[in-house]
Amino acid sequence: MNMSEIVRFGVSLENSLLEKYDRLIKKKGYTTRSEALRDLIRQELVKKEWEEDQEVAGAITFVYDHHKRGLMSQITDIQHDHQEIIISTQHIHLDHDNCLEIVAVKGHAQEVQKLAHELQSIKGVRHGTLGMTSTGKSIE
Amino acid sequence: MNMSEIVRFGVSLENSLLEKYDRLIKKKGYTTRSEALRDLIRQELVKKEWEEDQEVAGAITFVYDHHKRGLMSQITDIQHDHQEIIISTQHIHLDHDNCLEIVAVKGHAQEVQKLAHELQSIKGVRHGTLGMTSTGKSIE
Amino acid sequence: MNMSEIVRFGVSLENSLLEKYDRLIKKKGYTTRSEALRDLIRQELVKKEWEEDQEVAGAITFVYDHHKRGLMSQITDIQHDHQEIIISTQHIHLDHDNCLEIVAVKGHAQEVQKLAHELQSIKGVRHGTLGMTSTGKSIE
Amino acid sequence: MNMSEIVRFGVSLENSLLEKYDRLIKKKGYTTRSEALRDLIRQELVKKEWEEDQEVAGAITFVYDHHKRGLMSQITDIQHDHQEIIISTQHIHLDHDNCLEIVAVKGHAQEVQKLAHELQSIKGVRHGTLGMTSTGKSIE
Repeated sequence: MNMSEIVRFGVSLENSLLEKYDRLIKKKGYTTRSEALRDLIRQELVKKEWEEDQEVAGAITFVYDHHKRGLMSQITDIQHDHQEIIISTQHIHLDHDNCLEIVAVKGHAQEVQKLAHELQSIKGVRHGTLGMTSTGKSIE
Repeated sequence: MNMSEIVRFGVSLENSLLEKYDRLIKKKGYTTRSEALRDLIRQELVKKEWEEDQEVAGAITFVYDHHKRGLMSQITDIQHDHQEIIISTQHIHLDHDNCLEIVAVKGHAQEVQKLAHELQSIKGVRHGTLGMTSTGKSIE
Repeated sequence: MNMSEIVRFGVSLENSLLEKYDRLIKKKGYTTRSEALRDLIRQELVKKEWEEDQEVAGAITFVYDHHKRGLMSQITDIQHDHQEIIISTQHIHLDHDNCLEIVAVKGHAQEVQKLAHELQSIKGVRHGTLGMTSTGKSIE
Repeated sequence: MNMSEIVRFGVSLENSLLEKYDRLIKKKGYTTRSEALRDLIRQELVKKEWEEDQEVAGAITFVYDHHKRGLMSQITDIQHDHQEIIISTQHIHLDHDNCLEIVAVKGHAQEVQKLAHELQSIKGVRHGTLGMTSTGKSIE
């Protein structure tokens, strides 16, 4: 059987629960229950990827003042030290002082989290965050 | 049709996704997909209750040192000011100094969050947290 | 030096940042920076307790329909199997059908999380949540 | 007084708490308390920006299968409809099927969240996440 073939299975649920869920997903813009449940299931699988230190993908986003002496080269150095998990970097000039840098990453969950932490705690980086998603393989 | 009657509906999903999900829920101890999906659906509905400031239930849990002069009466005063959303309070002596207090609450989400915040920021309360769940009505 | 003695240390901060923070904490009801920062620091230490599987305290809160045959005895059985980490249980009748049960727990973080998960995934338990706090010892 | 001038203020804290915090921040790689507390303070300010629907920056990251007919144009259409809050888009070919797309955004918190949600719930988008950070202005 082809792995990406669509299969159909039955779910038993309290009628009252189903009616409430139907209202919720309609409001969220879904047109079918299958689509909404597929998204819920994928969220669970992605959470598991990160918890079990599997290969994941994501984006490390942080804000810093590019005027700060030595900061840009420090950021670049750290990224070079982790080049095996960094795919590419997007750089945005938010205003005269602030830069937004978004690093696309793919690698084991713990390494990605370690890099995110390292970048966020550089003196001069004002704030950072890690957007956690998947390489897509485990949620096909 | 009785609202709590069990209905059955079909879900279409990629076969590969379903196999991964089946492994995940088996590991979590579920015996059927319906049970696992029912729990996922309820989680979504409970999240919505809190976001939309509906009537919710929960537990405000915090730790404090009962030796601190005036602290216990301050905690009691605040709880009396919100008695319309407090159902009951459980008090536990963790050790010689530390008390764990668990306040069972039912009310509108924002009021409950406000009370939790008020208790957590009392000087002398070492840490507090809000466990968010449901009155059960919207997830039957 | 007495461990619970108050010490004073200096913090260097951008003036603009401090002004914004002062406004924030005033709005939250704090009267001094020390109190606000003490709470922030404790939050960090409690997060660490849970991440490092130290001894923690908390409350497992869940909602269920007591009419469900066999459910109450199943909940009781599981609690007995974990009596070494359960301190006491608070039981509230929310309405004709729904019960709120709040289990005060103290133990290693992973055991507490395992118990929470076990209770939440019982068929018939409508929703559950774990409020994570501290035994107070590590945040004195 | 120059807003970005460094000011120094005193914090009073229990000695035992400070020792534990010093160990924690040393482990996290900070060299001074001021740096660690500055980061904590900024996190609080960024949280507030998002809660109060202020102008924020961030990255919407999602994974999809580019083979899916019509999907890429649908993604592009939605992005064009929100071009006033989208700065630029980074596109990465993860493998033969999966693409990672990272959209740098700047705008009001609720609009950004709405766009993130819209992209995540497109049929064919396998998973999405929103990394929340700041324009930098409120955390200077």
